[in-house]
Amino acid sequence: MKRFTIEVHTEGNCDIKNLQPEVAKHLRGLPAGDGLLHLFVVGSTAAITTLEFEPGLVQHDVAALMQKLVPEDGHYQHEQTWNDDNGHSHLRAALIGPGVMIPFANGRLLTGEYQQIVLIDFDTRARKRVVVGSVIM
Amino acid sequence: MKRFTIEVHTEGNCDIKNLQPEVAKHLRGLPAGDGLLHLFVVGSTAAITTLEFEPGLVQHDVAALMQKLVPEDGHYQHEQTWNDDNGHSHLRAALIGPGVMIPFANGRLLTGEYQQIVLIDFDTRARKRVVVGSVIM
Amino acid sequence: MKRFTIEVHTEGNCDIKNLQPEVAKHLRGLPAGDGLLHLFVVGSTAAITTLEFEPGLVQHDVAALMQKLVPEDGHYQHEQTWNDDNGHSHLRAALIGPGVMIPFANGRLLTGEYQQIVLIDFDTRARKRVVVGSVIM
Repeated sequence: MKRFTIEVHTEGNCDIKNLQPEVAKHLRGLPAGDGLLHLFVVGSTAAITTLEFEPGLVQHDVAALMQKLVPEDGHYQHEQTWNDDNGHSHLRAALIGPGVMIPFANGRLLTGEYQQIVLIDFDTRARKRVVVGSVIM
Repeated sequence: MKRFTIEVHTEGNCDIKNLQPEVAKHLRGLPAGDGLLHLFVVGSTAAITTLEFEPGLVQHDVAALMQKLVPEDGHYQHEQTWNDDNGHSHLRAALIGPGVMIPFANGRLLTGEYQQIVLIDFDTRARKRVVVGSVIM
Repeated sequence: MKRFTIEVHTEGNCDIKNLQPEVAKHLRGLPAGDGLLHLFVVGSTAAITTLEFEPGLVQHDVAALMQKLVPEDGHYQHEQTWNDDNGHSHLRAALIGPGVMIPFANGRLLTGEYQQIVLIDFDTRARKRVVVGSVIM
């Protein structure tokens, strides 16, 4: 198993980063053949999924959906435990999930042309995120 | 690693297909032992999860829930980027996720009796979907 | 591949159990090196994700969110198929998903300090759940 980590600086508040270019670098140079790539974000207020990385979705629609489903200004008991403000961040992250597994062949991800691996940071402040990549062949 | 692909014709619009029978064929004939099966749908407007494959959920409840959470007739900036009509399809797919990993033993999936692997096509038209299967033992 | 199973007794109705302590036991004693742990819950009315395991989220916020998104007293065709009461349980489970994959190194999970692996039982009664663990190195 090959292991790598990626550091991603985010602005929080539903900031969405395209992980595909950085990930692709780590797959180059692998021996020919089929494999699986797993990506996992450390922490409970960010998530990883696949999404078409275009401005409409990335800069507006995902944030608007999340604000509708799990509003930032809702009432969350989590915030009374810690006296903080990110109850919605935890819930959004648990809903989407912390990781994704993607098949590849001959060092090339088998994602669709309009399907990118994205990190979504739901926290309420800028964060430095660690994404753990694992390659199985 | 064993790799296979399945082609699935869907009607779009929350059409739900049971992948279990086709997948089971690809596991038959494997050597005895424990393993993991990964399924991944190529494209950003479809998703894979597990669901009891019965008419109430498949023909009504999932579509009704999705229409409530991410309405087809909502306002999505995505549709201004491409001048199309499937902003909700992208958001629904990102919410559920593009794949699932299922343990198996001796060529038999360890899913529950009422738990089937399903492909949900959220796009707004009929599609031919490619599902990539990967077997780890 | 190393395989193990965990039995978890739940109260249903959004009961959330921390799987991390039990899982950690199964990773101890593994040879040094990088690996991936997969956890899968058998059945279509429970889910696995990661969550900060603190009382606010665990005893209130997750249940409140689920009641808002997929209400217990909604109208579900599933309940007419089986004449039962857990349509919402199936939908919630399909939304979150049945499993999670977590990287580890030298027998230690790479989850964040405030990020625990949790089982959420959405069924409407107490259940004995089987979680299948698979270790890839």
